[in-house]
This record gives sequence, C-alpha cells and structure tokens, in this order.
Amino acid sequence: MSARNHSTSRSHKDAVLLDARTVAVIGASPDDNKIGGKPMRFLREFNFRGQVFPVNPRYQEIGGYRCYPDVASIEEPIDAAIVAVPYQHAQPIIEECVRQGVRQIIMFSSGYAETGAEGAMRQQMLLRTIGGSSTRLLGPNTLGLANLESGFIANFSQAFELPPGVLRSGRAGFVSQSGAFGTFIFTLCAEQGLGFKYFIVTGNEGDITVSELIDAMVDDGEVDLVAGYVEGVRDGRRFLAACEKARAAGKPVVLIKTGRTPGGSAAAMSHTAAIAGSDEVYEAVFRQTGVIRVDDEEEMLDLVTLMRSHKAMRGRRVGVLTMSGGAGVLIADALESNGLELARLDPKTEEELAKVVPEFGSRRNPVDLTGQFLAEPQMLRSSLDILLRDPNTDAVLFFLGLGRRYGQQIAETLREISATAEKPVLVAWIAGPEQIIAQLRADGIAVLPSPTRAVRALSALAYFGEAHARQPRSFELIAAQSESISTTDHAGRCSEAQSKAVLERYGIKRLPEVLARSEEEAVASARSIGYPVVLKVCAADLPHKTEAGAVALNLRDEAAVRSAYHRILDNARRHAPGLNVEGVLVSPVVDGGVEVIVGGRRDPVFGPVVMVGSGGIYTEVLRDAAIGVLPLVKGEAEELIRSLRVYPLLAGARGKPPADIEALAATIEAVAKLMLDHPEVSEVEINPLRVLERGGGAVPLDALMVLQTA
Amino acid sequence: MSARNHSTSRSHKDAVLLDARTVAVIGASPDDNKIGGKPMRFLREFNFRGQVFPVNPRYQEIGGYRCYPDVASIEEPIDAAIVAVPYQHAQPIIEECVRQGVRQIIMFSSGYAETGAEGAMRQQMLLRTIGGSSTRLLGPNTLGLANLESGFIANFSQAFELPPGVLRSGRAGFVSQSGAFGTFIFTLCAEQGLGFKYFIVTGNEGDITVSELIDAMVDDGEVDLVAGYVEGVRDGRRFLAACEKARAAGKPVVLIKTGRTPGGSAAAMSHTAAIAGSDEVYEAVFRQTGVIRVDDEEEMLDLVTLMRSHKAMRGRRVGVLTMSGGAGVLIADALESNGLELARLDPKTEEELAKVVPEFGSRRNPVDLTGQFLAEPQMLRSSLDILLRDPNTDAVLFFLGLGRRYGQQIAETLREISATAEKPVLVAWIAGPEQIIAQLRADGIAVLPSPTRAVRALSALAYFGEAHARQPRSFELIAAQSESISTTDHAGRCSEAQSKAVLERYGIKRLPEVLARSEEEAVASARSIGYPVVLKVCAADLPHKTEAGAVALNLRDEAAVRSAYHRILDNARRHAPGLNVEGVLVSPVVDGGVEVIVGGRRDPVFGPVVMVGSGGIYTEVLRDAAIGVLPLVKGEAEELIRSLRVYPLLAGARGKPPADIEALAATIEAVAKLMLDHPEVSEVEINPLRVLERGGGAVPLDALMVLQTA
Repeated sequence: MSARNHSTSRSHKDAVLLDARTVAVIGASPDDNKIGGKPMRFLREFNFRGQVFPVNPRYQEIGGYRCYPDVASIEEPIDAAIVAVPYQHAQPIIEECVRQGVRQIIMFSSGYAETGAEGAMRQQMLLRTIGGSSTRLLGPNTLGLANLESGFIANFSQAFELPPGVLRSGRAGFVSQSGAFGTFIFTLCAEQGLGFKYFIVTGNEGDITVSELIDAMVDDGEVDLVAGYVEGVRDGRRFLAACEKARAAGKPVVLIKTGRTPGGSAAAMSHTAAIAGSDEVYEAVFRQTGVIRVDDEEEMLDLVTLMRSHKAMRGRRVGVLTMSGGAGVLIADALESNGLELARLDPKTEEELAKVVPEFGSRRNPVDLTGQFLAEPQMLRSSLDILLRDPNTDAVLFFLGLGRRYGQQIAETLREISATAEKPVLVAWIAGPEQIIAQLRADGIAVLPSPTRAVRALSALAYFGEAHARQPRSFELIAAQSESISTTDHAGRCSEAQSKAVLERYGIKRLPEVLARSEEEAVASARSIGYPVVLKVCAADLPHKTEAGAVALNLRDEAAVRSAYHRILDNARRHAPGLNVEGVLVSPVVDGGVEVIVGGRRDPVFGPVVMVGSGGIYTEVLRDAAIGVLPLVKGEAEELIRSLRVYPLLAGARGKPPADIEALAATIEAVAKLMLDHPEVSEVEINPLRVLERGGGAVPLDALMVLQTA
Repeated sequence: MSARNHSTSRSHKDAVLLDARTVAVIGASPDDNKIGGKPMRFLREFNFRGQVFPVNPRYQEIGGYRCYPDVASIEEPIDAAIVAVPYQHAQPIIEECVRQGVRQIIMFSSGYAETGAEGAMRQQMLLRTIGGSSTRLLGPNTLGLANLESGFIANFSQAFELPPGVLRSGRAGFVSQSGAFGTFIFTLCAEQGLGFKYFIVTGNEGDITVSELIDAMVDDGEVDLVAGYVEGVRDGRRFLAACEKARAAGKPVVLIKTGRTPGGSAAAMSHTAAIAGSDEVYEAVFRQTGVIRVDDEEEMLDLVTLMRSHKAMRGRRVGVLTMSGGAGVLIADALESNGLELARLDPKTEEELAKVVPEFGSRRNPVDLTGQFLAEPQMLRSSLDILLRDPNTDAVLFFLGLGRRYGQQIAETLREISATAEKPVLVAWIAGPEQIIAQLRADGIAVLPSPTRAVRALSALAYFGEAHARQPRSFELIAAQSESISTTDHAGRCSEAQSKAVLERYGIKRLPEVLARSEEEAVASARSIGYPVVLKVCAADLPHKTEAGAVALNLRDEAAVRSAYHRILDNARRHAPGLNVEGVLVSPVVDGGVEVIVGGRRDPVFGPVVMVGSGGIYTEVLRDAAIGVLPLVKGEAEELIRSLRVYPLLAGARGKPPADIEALAATIEAVAKLMLDHPEVSEVEINPLRVLERGGGAVPLDALMVLQTA
C-alpha cells in the first residue's frame, strides 16, 4: 500500500508539518457550523492549494469532494488528517491513521487529559498508539493549525469566520496554548492590519509542543517573528534551543507567559495542567535567549506592529519629535522609566532644526514642532529627516494627535520617510484618523495609539537588538567524567564539611577550618586558627544550625570555646534527637566584605540553574536574586552579578572599596560546573558567601548540598 | 458705573468662575478660524445660555451680535472677558477690564513667561494690574475654559471642532497644564462616549492655578470626578487642600503628573517652566490625599470609564467570570501583580455555580463559562448574579472576546445586571462589536478593551475606596510657640551635639554621651560610660565626619581613647583647616537593632515633610524611603514605616525579634513636630537611627540639623 510505504521510508520522529498537500477530514460534515464542517468550509474559503479528502461513511460526497468511508480507502498518501469525531470513536481512527502512514494528525476531539484522570488515560492510549510510529499528533483538544499562505486551515477557530479580507497572510507566526484567548489575540492583530502566516493552538500537547512549533516557524524563511501565548513549557531544553535559534536568526519571539504570580500559576494548573515551573527561571530563560515577554495582548499587538518593520535598533538613544510639549515631557519620562535615553542631539542637528522648527517650539530633544507643522508639510519631512541623520539617534519617535484634516498629507510624508529610513521610525498618534492609520499599518509603517505604549515597544526593540548582537550559544549539557558524590543521609543531605569539601574540589576557596571530634581538639584547633573563632555542629541531618542553637559566634578564648562546645552539641541534640553528628567545625571569624548567596538547583522544566543574590538577612527581605540556566557562557556570571540590586555595594558604593567581583563570578562558575558534572546533586547553596575586597577572594561561611534520592 | 459698583461690592480675591452669564470677546473676529472668531462660533454652536458681547472697534456687528468698541461701552456687568488680541495690544485692555470690574479674564494671548525673560516681565506687569483688584485671570497663553453644560465655551481648542454630537456634557471635569496634550486626551475620552462638564487649560498660571480649578470643580455638585494633566503645582498647600476636599467628598481626582524622572523633569521645566519639585514628595501627596496617579491617557480613559459608575469598591477581592481559561489565568496574574485578590468564593456560591456553569468550564474563581454562554443568555445572567451576591466579592470582572453575533443579547444582560448591582461590575471585552460597546459606555456601563487594563482600573478603584474611607484631615500648618534655634555656622549647620540637644527637647532618646574638651575629659567620660566607646569630632562646620577621618569606633581601653583623641582631631583639622571644633563626643557602642534614617526637610512646593528609610549602607543602594507631608495624622507614621521595603526586618524577619516600631514612629512624629514648630529649621537628619528590640527604644547614632540662612 503506497501510504504505508511512504511511512516506512521516513525516519522515526518526523518534523512537524506546517503545510500539507493532502488533507483528510475525518468526521467531515456538510454542515458548515459543525466541528467537522468548519475545516471543509475554511479550506475552501481560504483556497487551499492541496487536495481535500472528507472521511465519513455516511456520505458519498461533501461540498463537491468525494467522501471516503475510511482513511484506508484514500488512494493518496495523506500528509495531514484532521480528526473531528467524538472521543468515543477516536481511538480506532488514530490506529488507522498510524497504519496508513498519515504524517500528522490534527486532533480536534476533546475529552482527554483536560477532563481528569479518565481522560488522561485515554490520552495515554492515543500516545502509545502513535508512539512507535512516525506519525505526529497536534492536540488532542486543539483548535488546530492554520497556514494562511497555502490556505491549509486545519482549524475551527471562529477567527476564520471574520468578514472576508480581514485575515491576510503575513510574515509572522502565532502559537497559543489557549484556544479562546489565542483566537482573540489573533483577531485583534488581524483587525489592526497585521498579517500572520500561521495560527496554531497546541491543545493538550500530547505530542507536538509549543517549543517544536516555535522551532518550525523560525525555520520558515517566510516568517520574521513568532508571537505566542504560553502557560507552561513541557520540554524546557527544546524551548531553549528553539528560542536561541530565533535569537541568532534575528527573529523576535514575543510571548505572553502567564503564571507570573502564585495565583496565576494555580489558575494555569487548573486550566491546562501546565507545569507552572518557577517564574524566575522563565525570566532567566527569556533574558538568556532574547525572548520578549509581554504582559498582555495589547503589548503583543504593539510589538508585532513595530517589529515586523525589519529595522533593528542599534542602541537606546531616541530622537523625539512632537507636536505637543506636554506629550514630549510624558515621553521623556517614559523613555527613562523604560531604560531608554532621550538622545543628546548633535550640535549640528540643533542648528539644522533651528532653520525648520518654529521659534515658539523647541529645537532640543524632545523637538516640539507645535501644531504649526500641520499646515507646513515640509516642516515634518525635514525635521524627521534631520533627526534620522543625527549619529546620536538610534530610533525616532514621532508624536501627534488628531490632525484629521491633514491626515492624508501626514501619511504621505511618513511613507516617504519610512521608505528610505535606515533606523526605526515609530509614530504615536492619539485620536487620529482611523482609516488613514489602518492603511499606514497595512503598508508596514508602525503607528501606535499611545506615546507610552510606543516607548515600551521601542524598549523591547532595543532589548532585542542587544540580544541579537550576542554570540550564538548552545544549551547542550556537557558533563565532565567525575566520581559521583554520596552521603549517608536518607534525605540526601550533605553536612557543611562534606559540602565544602566538594566545593573545594571545584576551586572554591575554603577557610582554614577544622572538624573537631572532641573538646580538646576544638581548643587545639582554635589555638592554631587564632581567636576569635566560630563553632558549629556539623551534621548532614541538621541543615538549619542557627535555629537549633548549634552555632557559637565570636569566641574569644579557650574558656569560651570549651563552654560553647558542649552547649551547642546539647542544643543540637535536644533540637534533633538521634542526630548523626560528624563533629564540631571550628572556623575563624571573617570580617568585612559583602554577604551574598550563591546556589545551584534543578528546575523541573529547564534543568540545572545557578543563582546569585543578596545574602544574609536581605536574602528574603529584598528578593534580590539573578538566575542563569546552564550552561553559562563567558561573562554571563558577571552579568548576573551586575543585574543585582546589591551590585552598587559590590562595586564600591559610599566610598567603600570595591569587592572581589571576579572571585564571586568564579564561585558562580564553579557551582555551575559542579551542577553539570554531577546530575546526582539536586541542590547546592553557599549562604553566606563573604565577598572580600578586590584581590581578597570570596569565602563560603556556610554551605549545604542535597543529593537526589531514589 | 454699574460694572464698577458690581466689582467693589465683592471681597478681595474672588472665587474662580466656571460659568458666566455675560461674556465679552475682546478681539472678536467674524472669521471662524481666527483665534478671536473661534469662541464666537463655539459659544453659538454649544448654545451658550448667557449674553455675548463681541469687542472690536473695527466692526459694528459680528455673527448677529452687536459689536462694541471697548469693554467700557458694554452696559452690562461682565462676568468673563476673553482676551484674544496679540500681546502688543493686551496691557491696556487688561487695565480696562480691571477698571470695569470684569470678574474673570480668560487670556488666550501668548508672548508672556513661556517665551523668556522679556515675556516674563510682560506677564509680571499684567499680574500687577490685576493684583490689587478682584478680577481673576486664567492664562495668559491658555486655550481657555469650557463649560459644556451651559455652553460657556471660552476656549479655542480644536476639540470643539469635532463633529456635532461627539462632545457631550457629563459628570466629570478636566483640567490640563498642556493645551495640545490636554486636547488629545479630552478628545479621546469624548470619542469613547465619556462626557465632561468642564475642559480647562491653565496656560501660564499667572493667577488661577490648577489647584484652584480642582477645588472649584469639586465644589460643583454636578461633578463626580476630576481628571487632569499636571507638570508642576505652584501652590502646594492649596493643592493639598483641594485634593483632600475631593477625597473626603468621594470624588476621585485622576492625574497624569509628568516629571517622574530627571529627564522628564528637565523637559517639563523647559516646556511650561513648572517647578518640578521632588517626585517622591508628589507621590506622598497623592497617597495622603487619595489622588490617583496614572501614567498615560489610556489609563486615564480607563479610570474615567470605570469611576463614573458611582459604585464604590469596599475591598480588594475580585470575582472573575471568563469565557476563556487562558484569559482567566492572565487575569489571576494581573490581580496579584496589582495588589488585588482573586476572591475565595463562598462554598454556597460554588454550589450554585455548579448548576449553571458547564461541566467542562470551571466553577472556581476565575469562573470559566467557556464559549457556551453565548448560546445561553441565562447562563451569563445567573453566574454574574451569583458572583455579585457572594459576600466574599467586592467587585466582579467579566471577560469576553469577539461574540459579535450575540453582542446585542450580551449587552442587554449587562444592562439588566448593572442596573441593580450594588458592587462594581467591569467588563473586559477584546475585539468586541464597537458600536454595541460604545452604546454600553454611553449608558454608563464600564467596558474596557483589555483584561490587564481592566485589572489596573479595578486596583485604582480599590485604592480610592480605601482612601475615601479615611477620616477627613486638615493640612493646615500649626506651630507651637517655641524659642527659635540658632547656630553660629555661616551655612546654618548645627553640630551633632547641638542637633541631638534639640531633638532631645522633642523627646528623642539620647545616648549617655559626653562632649569632652580635653584628652583627660575624654578618658574620664569613657570610663563613666563604660568601654567600648566611640569618639567623634564635634563641629558644626564638619558635617561629613567619617570621610574626614574624624570618627574612631570601638575603642576598648584608655590607651585607645588617648591615641584616637588626637588622631581624629588632627585628621579633622587637616581635612578642614580653621575648623570650629566644639569638642570630642564620647559615646557608647550600641549593638543590635535595625538601622534606619529619619529626617525632615522643606519641599519648595509642598512645605515641611518627614522621611523614613533604610539606613546605613542601604540608604542609597535601595532608595527605600517613605515621605509624609506635614502635618501627619494619628497612625500615619506607622503607615510610612509599613510601606518600607525594610519593614519585614523591623517586624522581625527570619526568626529575629521584632524591633521597637512604636519608638521609631515616635521619633518620626517628634521630627515632624520640630519641623512644624521651627520654620527656621530647613533640614534635620538622624542617620542612622538604631531601632532596638521592642521595648528598647530607638537611639540616634548621628544627627544633623541645618537652619535657613538669610
């Protein structure tokens, strides 16, 4: 059978299909409003280029197409099969599709994992069926996939019921984990004249995930930008690779990622059973791969509007042209709040502007043309041109309001300027003439309805410009051969001494500490270390020493050491009877420096990460931490450090000497290597790490390591 | 002459007029497009109820009105005179208006303070002219004032050229310090169906200020809300009083206040020569008076849309009804990010919802109706009703998208529900049917186009509800009789010992410190205080002791005190030759507690303020400070403390004992009283103040006071 031959000739896990030449619609219906009728109608209305094979034993013909009783009866190999039957009938159909070598199933049917335990079992059965085959599956419980370029609308979203002409193909892709909300965002964009080549809803993600779809769209030469709505990623490493590919290719990925807050995460888990993961790790992933995270559909719309113009922003300096001084002030505020700069214009620019801008306006940035330019079109053209030519501007933002009487003429000027401008030009037009603005948008000119929204969009453009400029990187996890670490603790915990010993192997400096097994050893150690000293009970099963009263600070003489030795052991044993004590750790007192925390852990979605943050009492109060998904690249540890709120202290605030940032970075890198080399380590934490003056190094005052348990 | 009699019968500084029965248009023109023609046209088109008197010696008649050669020739007393002549001709006209007892001049003419030094002098002359009289002046350089209820359009903004029917009067007022930007915002609101009774631009604020206009609009029983654009307030105390009046009356004041950032402030100063003042003091003023600060015109539009519904929000718990699980998740995130809560529904509510909500939806908050409700109108009505009846919801947010086919029916349900609901109901409708939504808005139902914008608006409603619930207060400055403070320092500085002595009079605890005048005195003092001690050079003209090496910490014995005594005096004198040394302050070492900073200063706009913030090295790094404009009310010092980022540390984070917050609050109140009693004190700063464990008090480790100099 040709279909089966077709199937066996391909490799095991095939690439996702974003287009098809042959489509079977299983459960096809002649009723346009039924779930099995809609794709028939949309394929026709969007002029699908390929062949359509309705499958339904009850009909001979649907919509002019010959109808087949089953997939096996179709003579052609099938690229894509839409399954639009109730779940009660679906399993044998999926089996048949696999047998017939269908390359990809788009499964509209619901009643699977989204409905509870029973549905989840049904979904497991489906996945087992496709498991050994090369057939891929989108869904179940999906609105489907649409390719607006080829007319391959394997999708029953109401977006495709918009009046003719509203939806048009464009150089962007859209993927959503939510059907309804995805449809709304997609519609909103379409109504603003923004075209998308793809609109894909992933549904339950039984097989094909949002990560794979991003990857596939980035590979499409006709796609310049990918937008999406995501509640939770299932395959973190694949997501990293896809986003990194997009970044390197200069194709922005703009995502709404919900689950930012505990409340949102809880809602997401009950909605699509997404693994919420840690939002701070998502933030790190986005920063590391240049993904642009937006808060809502309006911000997404704004970015798609701006970013499809293909013009990169090479810095953060913005030339502002305004017809209102008040708006100029508001924009100046917004630029600074969003990390952009009001460009300092070249003196020559100000001279040239003086010849164009009215006397009662302003020739300084923000340049204020006043309403005068409405009557003098040349004024707008010249001043935009002058600002674009200034070597100190990286983009130009033009603000205006109303101006209906002169709208056509302004639009003409904007078209002329945009056609030749090498820098991004963004227009913020409040209460402007709607049709003229829609036409400008359709012509690829970025017009937004609000100055603050325009500034936020420019800020994202600058962020992406910086991300794109970075070297390509790999997120592959490579471990060195190394002996595995073990502990006798049933919960996998290592004691402070064990943990520090492992860290020392990775080059992390260690204090001249001694693990004393008796009072006399403690006294002798203290003497050799030099007073004052610190005593700590060392035991894998006592991770919270301070709360147990198992730490004695600042002991100044032998008597103090002797009395502390017994006191802290008694405290610890009272706190945790049956404690497995290794000994008492005698350490010197370290003064000065800045306390930070450095750690590593394994994120359930993205794998190993490192963390650096404000230490001591400020760890929890400030929530000042930076995370990096591993592996890090050169210089990335320093970037994490610089992003901390506590960074000015490390850099030497208030006349204090700068701290040893190099040593801190080396500590972060050492923890990273430890996490990569030892998959059995689930967590490591150095808290506090005391970062001394530059050249003095960084010393771990306490450390904790936890190993995976079976 | 009747006009003059009319004038003299009134008190000196008259209230601002927001309406007029008689209007003179000086510089009136028959040309509708001229600045002197526009008000003639607008008064006619907006059916002004009073009498219009064009003044222009070149015409006998304009637009059917008899034209007068000058104001003196008008037989009626004139309430308002619009001055629309070039500045070259304006001065004698103003003089005539004053002579004729015109109650208020609305001065369109430009060429005054906005143009530079010469114009500023012209403006001074104008102001001298009206100075001794009861005549008030709006402007110069203003677009003017408009009362849409009475048709008193003394304004030449292009907003009044919108197509007939777009502008309608409503129960809100709008005031702007920017003409163009104000016009755009006002137009944007008008186009969304929001009516305003007033639209006023203040121009140069030679006489009438934005504060007075807010006050006057709040006094108007037909105004429920005041919106505005402000770059800088000139009369801080009047502004405080006006906003407090609005708060107490339950009338929200919604402001865009630019100059949030240094860049914005600089732009504002060059735009309207506004005194930028300190943005953190504005923030304090807004918080203390319940003013709602918004970032841009869209947020303003959203708040006006929501707040004119008159329904107060009595808490922060939101019931969410959605047709999309994805949007529900996004809303859950947005609620938490904006300080609101996803309401925990009463179990009875969930039971009732179970009878209404489809099985594949969600009966938990966010309640997901899915698209199913479109076909079943009763489902929407019942679930909204159930959520509104739940005692655990303070407002209900309903999200939907598209739904054009069912739009009319949904609108009907929303009208029914809103008519009887006692709690706020807000609709977030993405990509919905425009005309149906516009009609809903015009009927007073709050519909916004985005779920995150809806959540932000609800958050502001909750904030205003809380502000309105507070007791009325007065911002009058009342000082107790007290002897004035003096210093011999030419720059007005007081030494640490002098400063602490004054603070002690206000009940601020003082360490057992001694000001030693010799080495022997220092040694004796140290002995009586008890080791270890701290030595500090005390001199009014040495405010930065640490940098001068004039401090010795942690001296443990007599030898250390003797050597430090000379060393720090030598350091200080080398650092500042000719230093006026009072002595050396010997103080005990204070351990433990949390370091904060407490201070007082005089803001150029709002007068005396107090400040509390993170102390020590974190003062600058964290920028964690809270400000209160004086006088504070009972409990307000604690509120400032609770708003600090460092608050968890004070409250007892990480198992530490809580700090003496009462003592800290008492210190803030003492500084406040000192600032009120002593106008000669320009600044006081206790840094650090060490806040000890509860019951232990708070001790100033260092203090600095600066007096006004002539």
